[in-house]
Amino acid sequence: MRNLIFSFLILIFFTGCIQHQEEKTTSASSEKPAWAIVVHGGAGNMNPDNFTDEKEKAYKDKLSEALKAGAAILKSDGTAIDAVEAAINILEDSPLFNAGKGAVFNADGVNELDASIMDGKTLNAGAVANVKRIKNPISAARMVMEKSPHVMLISDGAEKFASEQGITLVEPEYFFTENRWESLQKAKEREKQKLEDETKKSGTVGCVALDMDGNIAAGTSTGGMTNKKYGRVGDSPIIGAGTYADNNSCGVSATGHGEFFIRNVVAYDIAARVKYKGESAEVAANDIVNNKLKAIGASGGVIVLDKNGNITMPFNTTGMFRGYKYPGEEPEVFIFQE
Amino acid sequence: MRNLIFSFLILIFFTGCIQHQEEKTTSASSEKPAWAIVVHGGAGNMNPDNFTDEKEKAYKDKLSEALKAGAAILKSDGTAIDAVEAAINILEDSPLFNAGKGAVFNADGVNELDASIMDGKTLNAGAVANVKRIKNPISAARMVMEKSPHVMLISDGAEKFASEQGITLVEPEYFFTENRWESLQKAKEREKQKLEDETKKSGTVGCVALDMDGNIAAGTSTGGMTNKKYGRVGDSPIIGAGTYADNNSCGVSATGHGEFFIRNVVAYDIAARVKYKGESAEVAANDIVNNKLKAIGASGGVIVLDKNGNITMPFNTTGMFRGYKYPGEEPEVFIFQE
Repeated sequence: MRNLIFSFLILIFFTGCIQHQEEKTTSASSEKPAWAIVVHGGAGNMNPDNFTDEKEKAYKDKLSEALKAGAAILKSDGTAIDAVEAAINILEDSPLFNAGKGAVFNADGVNELDASIMDGKTLNAGAVANVKRIKNPISAARMVMEKSPHVMLISDGAEKFASEQGITLVEPEYFFTENRWESLQKAKEREKQKLEDETKKSGTVGCVALDMDGNIAAGTSTGGMTNKKYGRVGDSPIIGAGTYADNNSCGVSATGHGEFFIRNVVAYDIAARVKYKGESAEVAANDIVNNKLKAIGASGGVIVLDKNGNITMPFNTTGMFRGYKYPGEEPEVFIFQE
Repeated sequence: MRNLIFSFLILIFFTGCIQHQEEKTTSASSEKPAWAIVVHGGAGNMNPDNFTDEKEKAYKDKLSEALKAGAAILKSDGTAIDAVEAAINILEDSPLFNAGKGAVFNADGVNELDASIMDGKTLNAGAVANVKRIKNPISAARMVMEKSPHVMLISDGAEKFASEQGITLVEPEYFFTENRWESLQKAKEREKQKLEDETKKSGTVGCVALDMDGNIAAGTSTGGMTNKKYGRVGDSPIIGAGTYADNNSCGVSATGHGEFFIRNVVAYDIAARVKYKGESAEVAANDIVNNKLKAIGASGGVIVLDKNGNITMPFNTTGMFRGYKYPGEEPEVFIFQE
């Protein structure tokens, strides 16, 4: 009798294991797209009333343009890293986002930019922080990854290195935009009145791509925080906080209140939960953004693309500029909660 | 019959759960010390032949002094954060280690220092990078954590903030030590001859402490890499890479080839495996240092102190300055493999 029960137990156990394994494998292989790309242009507490149809269209068009630029590379069998850089370059060159051309001003009226990029195949990574003359920080971050033995270069040193590598430097005036200047004046005014200022933390851009070879890459680029002081660095140039990619789990780019994202190692935490707990990227990212971070008052969001091409884009603010594109489909772009 | 088997199954399942739970709890509570502290002074490929008895004694005495300073705070019911700062201050003030006074020179003959600290109770954290005039960077990192809304401040901005908070600034000449200057000249010579240079990456200091309230804190301080260029930042000031602490898992301070430690999010990865995989800190840290990192040529080590007071100090080099202290015991300090 005891032998019978024991054999029955063993049988149930192994049947369960095999079924579970099959379900997971089937589900993954039947749905996996040839390639995929997802971008964000920052999360924030945006008011739909402040968005005219024209303004909404301008943002959505630019997100679509970035997705198409990345997709063109991916469908020609290009690399995920090339796609990420190309998509982010377009967002950096637009004044709409807080990265590159549209970077916000720090307390001294200077634009200080940060970016990082990671290759999920090799776990190579590169980052620049606190640079003031690099037109496309994501391209400089890529050069740090590919042409230096280092991961993170900052300030003048990063600019010197980028310049030696042929990266375009611009005069600081290139980053002047009227509305960002006004934002600084308003932020200083709110500071004088000691008002809480939620508006100054949004607008970072990012991208994650999966190429036809199964390689994932992720990148993030930002102008930082309006009115920031003391050479503050947020999560965007920090591997593990703002950016992470690993072919074996997922790629992540984050946007939001950077201090909380650093302390919670947000980008890597999502990958760690996928790797170690066996959670889906969707479950892990949603729990971290909408429960863990929200509970501590950390506003923001993430875009995640897993090794099977699944995309998730949770945010705990009223809006996040975001979108994705799969083969044979038009870009899907969004701003507010759907 | 089927009901019988089903009940039997349920019984076995719950008995297993309860036993497992009891084992873990018993094991933890019976061994947990009132407090604990562990320090490191850097890992590297050190040759015992280069260590006279006097030199070995000097290092061991300084590690003991740091442990005793931290322990004095912990046994008076002081906080883990206070203990970490006090222990690291002693290592920073010694010319023996590559942190504070003994910081190495960058390629321009300048000492650039980085540090970070994290409070495992609140997950608050602070870091400074690329500072040139702060006598005790770990104390500046603590000020960033406690007196600013930010986590990471760099370069001049960090110095300005530290100065406003009453942190001691020194003239850059304070950090001049003859042997570090000679190391720079040798590194430049090896660079000219295109020789691999393993010596320039070691010497970071760190500490993890567990206080009587069960709070864990961790901190790391470094002078970076001899002959480093372009404002390179390593893992020491990066939360998640060089430093991490969480009361629910463990505290970690890392030392080694920083680029690899950033890309592998080493400090947080150990905590994540403890949290998500249920591994012991010892198993997780040992596997990461001696398998994962070693396999990719990443030299270094970590000190880890878990919530139950267990200490582990794996390194994949020939030596790591290290030691720990428990209540009622003398400090145990080591340099080479035991």
